[in-house]
Amino acid sequence: MTPLPRGYLFAGIHSGLRSEPGRRDLALIVSRVPAAAAGVFTVNRVCAAPVQVSRRRVPRADARGIVICSGNANACTGRQGVEDALRMAAVTAEELYCDGEQILVCSTGIIGRPLPMPTLESGIRSAAKRLSDSEAALNDVAHAILTTDTRPKIRYRSLTVGGVEIRLTGIAKGAAMIGPHLATMLGFVLTDADVAADRLQAILRKAADRSFNCISVEGHMSTNDTVLLLANGQAEGASPLAGSDLEAFAVAVEAVCGELAREIANDAEGISHLIMIDVEGARTEEEARRVAKTIAESALVKTAIFGADPNWGRIVSAAGYSGVEFREEDLSLWLGDLLLYDRGMPVPFDAAAASAYLRNNREVCMKLVFTLGTARCRFYTCDLGYEYIRLNAEYTT
Amino acid sequence: MTPLPRGYLFAGIHSGLRSEPGRRDLALIVSRVPAAAAGVFTVNRVCAAPVQVSRRRVPRADARGIVICSGNANACTGRQGVEDALRMAAVTAEELYCDGEQILVCSTGIIGRPLPMPTLESGIRSAAKRLSDSEAALNDVAHAILTTDTRPKIRYRSLTVGGVEIRLTGIAKGAAMIGPHLATMLGFVLTDADVAADRLQAILRKAADRSFNCISVEGHMSTNDTVLLLANGQAEGASPLAGSDLEAFAVAVEAVCGELAREIANDAEGISHLIMIDVEGARTEEEARRVAKTIAESALVKTAIFGADPNWGRIVSAAGYSGVEFREEDLSLWLGDLLLYDRGMPVPFDAAAASAYLRNNREVCMKLVFTLGTARCRFYTCDLGYEYIRLNAEYTT
Repeated sequence: MTPLPRGYLFAGIHSGLRSEPGRRDLALIVSRVPAAAAGVFTVNRVCAAPVQVSRRRVPRADARGIVICSGNANACTGRQGVEDALRMAAVTAEELYCDGEQILVCSTGIIGRPLPMPTLESGIRSAAKRLSDSEAALNDVAHAILTTDTRPKIRYRSLTVGGVEIRLTGIAKGAAMIGPHLATMLGFVLTDADVAADRLQAILRKAADRSFNCISVEGHMSTNDTVLLLANGQAEGASPLAGSDLEAFAVAVEAVCGELAREIANDAEGISHLIMIDVEGARTEEEARRVAKTIAESALVKTAIFGADPNWGRIVSAAGYSGVEFREEDLSLWLGDLLLYDRGMPVPFDAAAASAYLRNNREVCMKLVFTLGTARCRFYTCDLGYEYIRLNAEYTT
Repeated sequence: MTPLPRGYLFAGIHSGLRSEPGRRDLALIVSRVPAAAAGVFTVNRVCAAPVQVSRRRVPRADARGIVICSGNANACTGRQGVEDALRMAAVTAEELYCDGEQILVCSTGIIGRPLPMPTLESGIRSAAKRLSDSEAALNDVAHAILTTDTRPKIRYRSLTVGGVEIRLTGIAKGAAMIGPHLATMLGFVLTDADVAADRLQAILRKAADRSFNCISVEGHMSTNDTVLLLANGQAEGASPLAGSDLEAFAVAVEAVCGELAREIANDAEGISHLIMIDVEGARTEEEARRVAKTIAESALVKTAIFGADPNWGRIVSAAGYSGVEFREEDLSLWLGDLLLYDRGMPVPFDAAAASAYLRNNREVCMKLVFTLGTARCRFYTCDLGYEYIRLNAEYTT
């Protein structure tokens, strides 16, 4: 049996916000005791009401829960949107006998529509009555936050630090409008470790930079991106983590975030190839990420991979306009095991083998090696094919 | 009859660089007398050999000609590529009895292949024997520079300044890998006005910012982008332009560049909608352009237009991550004549009418009005549909 972190309750229900009968659209995540909470959010200037509300509430030491609705983003909804987000938190707090400030709020879905508050309010009250610490209830939450994702995304981890067994669970949703900056999509990581809120915030920031900020579907930054990390200290015998114990915990958080991020890219709308972009030998991690992101967001690179075409000139030229300074002779490029470009010069290669590599693998890898330093990053994206067009041209508002 | 600027000769031939029988692939543009020359170039770190050669040669007062090949970009070709570009200029100069430095070089086509120099050299010599001042010869040049463009792009202008009739002709190629910064694609503007080289450079820079830097197909910056402007002073009775005459000339250059830029967006690979993005009320022209470019490069915006879906949340959220600071209440959005978003609040609108507007017009307009200042820009892009995917997935290297 999968060990869930101790001291958390879950509920995911159909409130009626979505019109599809029975489709889950409302979720509660509750900590039995006040938990340290950290969060990272979209930096889009046009950000949703729940983002405006939640980002003022973290980091904090006494979070009690998270309320999430899907199907409506509560974005571009003006003052009424903020009041509605505050009300979602307040109704949840009433049910938990805590303060509204202790509740964090998230929404995802269509932009520009007011929330149907009576539906949501009764939904929250009914979800609160079904809270459970079961894996089935967690699974309901993972389903309730999805939009066009084809499957829920859940990851588990446990580790022993200082003789105490600590557990982590992460869930996420992605699908499209994935163009990370600071954070993207919705993600929730829960742990029973005992970690101070400010340290938790630093750990989440770094983990998000290396995971959720290293994926892209089409580079469109969402209005609603939120990742929250709760730590309630309910592991048996837990005491506040510090030193190497805290570092081990941070590594585990990063691993959970990394796996969720990869899952989001791997379930991107219309995907037929998951593309892993490794950048090595850069001056800084930030520069490595900038190169990878520029390549990941090139429609020409993505359509070439979709068409199983080893068109390396598109990859190298995208690196060239990333804004990172380099000379051509600083750069080499591999596609899978094939060296295509060696320190600024094209290498004769077996084009049929390279094309077969792309045609026969759902997951493909390109590696760019610079001679500028030792920083690196691993970035995930997807290809761009007919199905992405179909989904996004036919998705009617 | 179209008045060509005086004192220019043209030739566009099939040299054999392209394998399609008879398809023109090599062009010469020659000024009978030394001409002032200005140029703007890609800022991609990975830039083609002809860009490296030509950008060192402008601005200058004594240019004699331009040699251009299509089908091969001469990019990512190392030192040999630079030697080949220099050789293209040198062979042209031999034929014109001038110095190699007086010749500018451009290439466009596939990246990473060495130029077939014997083919090109004999092509240049044979083109030099066919130089002509006829409109047919100019038309041959306009064809010879094309890649996947579906049609040549030529514009004419004449104006009278200080009693002298001045003529301008511009030609360009585009199609894909269009993601402007400073300049993009190949463009050539020729005039018989008499303008000093440094003034010509300033005029071209500003015109390019407002035209070729205001278009995008998929945002992928090319390795070969080049726009050159020659002014040979061969208008009858021409004397050096200054003051308001120079301003009138600059307006004409900007008009020719603007029309060519619009033509490039309108002939983008796989296009079914030309999208005009007007941004008004911005703090600076640069900020207006940044907002427009971010929207123009969002796959979600482009697929929505392809699908005739008035999904304004995608437009507003793209403006939000453009990097330009604003509050939601600073922004209003029109689609055609329909107001969709009014100072931060959604406006109830006739969705069927909005969708019909997109479905029934090849050219569609969105207008974003900020309350931040008085700067504006007009930007052109295209939608993203199945045909772009087909062309770019099936284009095999």
